[in-house]
Amino acid sequence: MIKLIVMGVVIAMPAAAYEPLVEKQEFTLTEFVTDGGETIPEMRLGYETYGTLNEARDNAILIPHYFSGSSHAAGKYAEGDAAPGYWDAIIGSGKPIDTDKWFVVSVDSPVNLGANDPNVITTGPASINPATDQPWGMDFPILTMGDFVETQKGLMDQLEIPKWHAVMGASMGGIQSYEWAARYPDLLDRVVPVIASGWADADLIAWLDIWASPIRLDPNWNGGDYYDGEPPNAGLADALKTLTLHANSAEWSNGTFGRNWAEDGADPAAGWDNEFAVVDALNAAGAARAGLSDANHFLYLVKANQLFVAGGAGENLYQGLLDIDVPVMLIHTDEDLVFPGDAVRETGAIIKSDGTPVEIVELQGTRGHLDGVLGIAQAGERIRAFIEAE
Amino acid sequence: MIKLIVMGVVIAMPAAAYEPLVEKQEFTLTEFVTDGGETIPEMRLGYETYGTLNEARDNAILIPHYFSGSSHAAGKYAEGDAAPGYWDAIIGSGKPIDTDKWFVVSVDSPVNLGANDPNVITTGPASINPATDQPWGMDFPILTMGDFVETQKGLMDQLEIPKWHAVMGASMGGIQSYEWAARYPDLLDRVVPVIASGWADADLIAWLDIWASPIRLDPNWNGGDYYDGEPPNAGLADALKTLTLHANSAEWSNGTFGRNWAEDGADPAAGWDNEFAVVDALNAAGAARAGLSDANHFLYLVKANQLFVAGGAGENLYQGLLDIDVPVMLIHTDEDLVFPGDAVRETGAIIKSDGTPVEIVELQGTRGHLDGVLGIAQAGERIRAFIEAE
Repeated sequence: MIKLIVMGVVIAMPAAAYEPLVEKQEFTLTEFVTDGGETIPEMRLGYETYGTLNEARDNAILIPHYFSGSSHAAGKYAEGDAAPGYWDAIIGSGKPIDTDKWFVVSVDSPVNLGANDPNVITTGPASINPATDQPWGMDFPILTMGDFVETQKGLMDQLEIPKWHAVMGASMGGIQSYEWAARYPDLLDRVVPVIASGWADADLIAWLDIWASPIRLDPNWNGGDYYDGEPPNAGLADALKTLTLHANSAEWSNGTFGRNWAEDGADPAAGWDNEFAVVDALNAAGAARAGLSDANHFLYLVKANQLFVAGGAGENLYQGLLDIDVPVMLIHTDEDLVFPGDAVRETGAIIKSDGTPVEIVELQGTRGHLDGVLGIAQAGERIRAFIEAE
Repeated sequence: MIKLIVMGVVIAMPAAAYEPLVEKQEFTLTEFVTDGGETIPEMRLGYETYGTLNEARDNAILIPHYFSGSSHAAGKYAEGDAAPGYWDAIIGSGKPIDTDKWFVVSVDSPVNLGANDPNVITTGPASINPATDQPWGMDFPILTMGDFVETQKGLMDQLEIPKWHAVMGASMGGIQSYEWAARYPDLLDRVVPVIASGWADADLIAWLDIWASPIRLDPNWNGGDYYDGEPPNAGLADALKTLTLHANSAEWSNGTFGRNWAEDGADPAAGWDNEFAVVDALNAAGAARAGLSDANHFLYLVKANQLFVAGGAGENLYQGLLDIDVPVMLIHTDEDLVFPGDAVRETGAIIKSDGTPVEIVELQGTRGHLDGVLGIAQAGERIRAFIEAE
């Protein structure tokens, strides 16, 4: 085991990252028509694969990623990388998602937050609109989770994969897993939505708005038109700060920072520049992540998540969940502030109501929502059994 | 019973507001020296009283207020007022805090959020600094909950009240109740902290920072120097929006708004101006409250709350709680996101650890933290018994 330190907390990781070294690949969809009926002339996206597609082409597993994530789910790009992909603990030779058996496909989403990250390939408001030769900005079409799934369907077709053995992912990746199962029940055999529920309820819609609000408040945002000047990184950093706290838990903040000061001798009672350690760490985390991120992409991700209802928002909120007829494994934690236990259990109950098999796995941990990423190893053997079942 | 509609939810209220009509009074403390050793030449604050001080002067109950509240705890200023003070359900003739028996004193805090509310009298960064004849702005001394208590001690002396029969309050009012009991164990007979815990832990410190951040992001804030121009009301509205959501619960947002749109026919999927109803309501609530509030006052309140440790932050975080030796009734709800159940129970356990009697009353409701204000009536008879006990 090696130890990885994430936001001050030591995480035990299996020593061996997925091998061999991973290479980002890319694919392009042309004349992509959105759920809203608009056309994106060229949708260029990145993806990674782990393991080998078998001759029968029936061993592929799709993993869409979470809100602030990318397709880097496992392995390293170079030996010297500080950390492997986010779910490396369960993806690799002999691991629960055993790459000796499975061919794992992980895809960058459109409007990916990391628009400025060299390891992300995405298309969104920061991309050039071929009609104007300028960045799209807020003229980029609003996307839905259905659109995200359609981009993955496009890749599936290009890779000539007739059916996914499984679709699984954490948070927004879990949302996309529900969407896949509701939209294409015949194109997959099972789903594993992790730390996610089957629709965005008012509570999630409102919190997503709280995340996004600082961006619109930053004067540099300028209605989304900032690609010629200074980006609204102060607002984006505050948005990322809020997301970071919301995705954690009181156990984490209290256990890690307590009432410590950011700096010895700089009592927060003595001046406005003196901060508590927890605030300082969150400010640093937000600022660090802002650099590789794009503010408009953040807003598009928030919108897509707010709009989410599995299978699309029709007359019956639950229809998409009722349409799911493959086995479902829901993995969640009751310490999750973003997708509370009640919302996940309600989702499971609705899917199960017409006889679809649903297994619920509860994670333990001190990181709240983030335990679906950082603590996924504890569900590893349950995942292995679920995806290996005949 | 009459019905009061608060943020879309119908609240049943006892028909009779406290009588007679209430008048805001004021008091002044001169050369007020803060915990931090700075001097405020003139501290002018408002207060209200309900009931009559008896000849023995031993029937007085102090009620400090919550973060966004004021001393208007009961009654109406005029017959036509839309609603009485916030705890009117339990204050009045025959009510649990029976004004036929008790003399209730409710005090505006320094740096009160409602600096522009004609019904609030406060002193803070929006007040004129007599040394410069300009508003203090961020030169106003940083205050602590100890300072808040000292202003109330000043009023106590002016009213010639030798001892409080009880000190009680909700949220920041509960915090001040702890502070009173830790700081002046001989000047009160019992305390009732409602929806509050005994110190600001890292989780609360961080969330208070999230509340405050939009203010600093608003260019009109200008380092706190805006009294000659446009105030940072966009940032302040976002701060108040975040506070409003955080003080509520998923049961409230989901039950009240669901996935409804703000406007019929304006599908949030179809445009950036189209909002979900929950977001629209929160935006409206934030904007409405910003008008009477002051952004710098918000920041000073956040700081004072972040600094809070009952009895002051000494070597032992728990010393102030251990110093409490009057009976304590803690009232809280497990749906509270601001002061979670675990934090309140931990506070109770520490106070009780040296034999101090602690009663814990759990509220039920759908409003989260706000149930300590809106749902207080259900604890009424427990409060009556506690304050009437010999």
